Amino acid sequence: MNIKISGTGSYIPSNVEKNENFYNHEFLNNDGSVIEAPNEVIVRKFKAITGIDERRYAKAHLNSSDLGFFAAEKAIANAKIDPETIDYIIVAHNFGDVKHNTIQSDMLPSLASRIKHSLRIKNPKCIAYDILFGCPGWIEGVVQAQAFIKSGMAKRCLVIGTETLSRVTDKHDRDSMIYSDGAGATIIESTDEDCGILAHETASFTYDEAYYLFFGNSNNQDLCRDTRYIKMDGRKIYEFALTNVPLAIKSCLDKSGVDIKDVKKIFIHQANEKMDEAILKRLYQLYETEIPQGIMPMSIHKLGNSSVATIPTLFDLVKNNQLENHSISKGDIIIFASVGAGMNINAIVYKY
Amino acid sequence: MNIKISGTGSYIPSNVEKNENFYNHEFLNNDGSVIEAPNEVIVRKFKAITGIDERRYAKAHLNSSDLGFFAAEKAIANAKIDPETIDYIIVAHNFGDVKHNTIQSDMLPSLASRIKHSLRIKNPKCIAYDILFGCPGWIEGVVQAQAFIKSGMAKRCLVIGTETLSRVTDKHDRDSMIYSDGAGATIIESTDEDCGILAHETASFTYDEAYYLFFGNSNNQDLCRDTRYIKMDGRKIYEFALTNVPLAIKSCLDKSGVDIKDVKKIFIHQANEKMDEAILKRLYQLYETEIPQGIMPMSIHKLGNSSVATIPTLFDLVKNNQLENHSISKGDIIIFASVGAGMNINAIVYKY
Repeated sequence: MNIKISGTGSYIPSNVEKNENFYNHEFLNNDGSVIEAPNEVIVRKFKAITGIDERRYAKAHLNSSDLGFFAAEKAIANAKIDPETIDYIIVAHNFGDVKHNTIQSDMLPSLASRIKHSLRIKNPKCIAYDILFGCPGWIEGVVQAQAFIKSGMAKRCLVIGTETLSRVTDKHDRDSMIYSDGAGATIIESTDEDCGILAHETASFTYDEAYYLFFGNSNNQDLCRDTRYIKMDGRKIYEFALTNVPLAIKSCLDKSGVDIKDVKKIFIHQANEKMDEAILKRLYQLYETEIPQGIMPMSIHKLGNSSVATIPTLFDLVKNNQLENHSISKGDIIIFASVGAGMNINAIVYKY
Repeated sequence: MNIKISGTGSYIPSNVEKNENFYNHEFLNNDGSVIEAPNEVIVRKFKAITGIDERRYAKAHLNSSDLGFFAAEKAIANAKIDPETIDYIIVAHNFGDVKHNTIQSDMLPSLASRIKHSLRIKNPKCIAYDILFGCPGWIEGVVQAQAFIKSGMAKRCLVIGTETLSRVTDKHDRDSMIYSDGAGATIIESTDEDCGILAHETASFTYDEAYYLFFGNSNNQDLCRDTRYIKMDGRKIYEFALTNVPLAIKSCLDKSGVDIKDVKKIFIHQANEKMDEAILKRLYQLYETEIPQGIMPMSIHKLGNSSVATIPTLFDLVKNNQLENHSISKGDIIIFASVGAGMNINAIVYKY
């Protein structure tokens, strides 16, 4: 029995937030001091490192669970399945539903319950739950779906990654320009075909790394100290990812028995273009092999970092030939890999 | 291969909040109107229905992840295992860490990451994630641990339920008297012994029921409309639970092949004494059998409803002979069953 992705869908919010929209922000250092550079220069440097030109924000009346529902509807249609046959709805996110211009996370009921409700699924045996696992949450949801299918508890699962990071950003922090909103969804099921998940790998680094990404105060020390925002220690994350992500991918690839030269695409979490390029370089160094042209599709320039949504969205775009110069064909070996809050890392080697 | 609970631990906060402490609250109806009864009468009626005399609140400097950590330490000690051998840390909660006197949920990083960090576990192959599944979250974590063990992805898991409901209550709502804080933890692992999980059952009812428990405004309409609290439609939940929980337990028991007469204890989620008694009555009616004396241990009188923490805490108390007139012996058949936000229901039939 193999376990394959039988359908995909994504929801890319229509509100485009361009880099120029940050020109009038008051950017501050972590200690509250003013950054001694014009915003045009700050934004240009930001773009040079992250590759981000623009990002997407959800419309004010929509929440994370709405985005996830839109992506789920498309994945169900793409897989051509009856939604009543879904055994699990697994929703990865990090902040729940955060209404526009409010600060509370709403996860009561879980986003999975909300999405199942919106999908009008009646079957009570369709189990709906949320997983919190940082940006690697969607991949981990797929790994969990695989476990349920392998252990005989499920045949078909809907795994969703959805997030509205724009609602938890500190506008006085340059890192706020990274974050984006979006959702990606996939149907995971068992198959007798010669395709699907070949290997997976997951690791949680918490001893020193647990708080590299955290919920912290605004850089503007005049703002309420009880209100917190997504914060990161970018330098430490960069070094951590550069060391550990290539090793995790290699471990996963070695488990799968696939030769690195047979890998056609690597779908890496869209966090930072320079970081992703450095991870790729390090990975191929581990195999003492040249990086093939066009191995790593990137959506970060136009879509920013939408956390759990980046990989399923990117995969959906490439699968549907909606990302220039990228396509995949039946039988191609691809890799999904992610890194994020926790700090968690995971990877899947997959035969398309 | 069987899957057993090899260790338990719980953390019961030391702050006792007695019913009398609510005498000076200003209780309002949902529409904001004043309840035309003295608080002494309101509290007496509340006590008559729910059975709750007092509940526990975490100390102000502690958060949900701290409570979970304390319980986890005890479960690890009780199981006499090396924490570095744990493959999964699964933490069930509903609101993340909510600091005392603040309104934001903090789940970045996940509570599982925080607890793993506090346990000083170094092994990165110990995967730490959170599950949101309403009050039945701890049971569902055990079901997931079972899937990981059965599918060969794990040998030993730490499953924790931890919650600080006192931090998300509307003090103008009589239901605020229900909620409590606490944590329970268990080590789940494979065994060759003749014991462990015999059957499990889970259901998510979202078509009409998704918002029976929800995050809503204070009954005091002068308070900020952007601040929300745990809210429930108690009548609907009561009817829903009374119909569906006995059926879920029966389905699980029938799957296990165990005769109802061989069941020694039923550990039901501690939500409301009258509701739990009605569920029990209905269950035994389904089997046309008398309810045995002392079948249902209750901790609600002194501990209130601490959501995901109630069942692992209650089990830990009975196992350690800390609940008057209740004990279990090797070989006893017991049932765990829960119902809560989602609306989710689950049950496990277990041979001790």
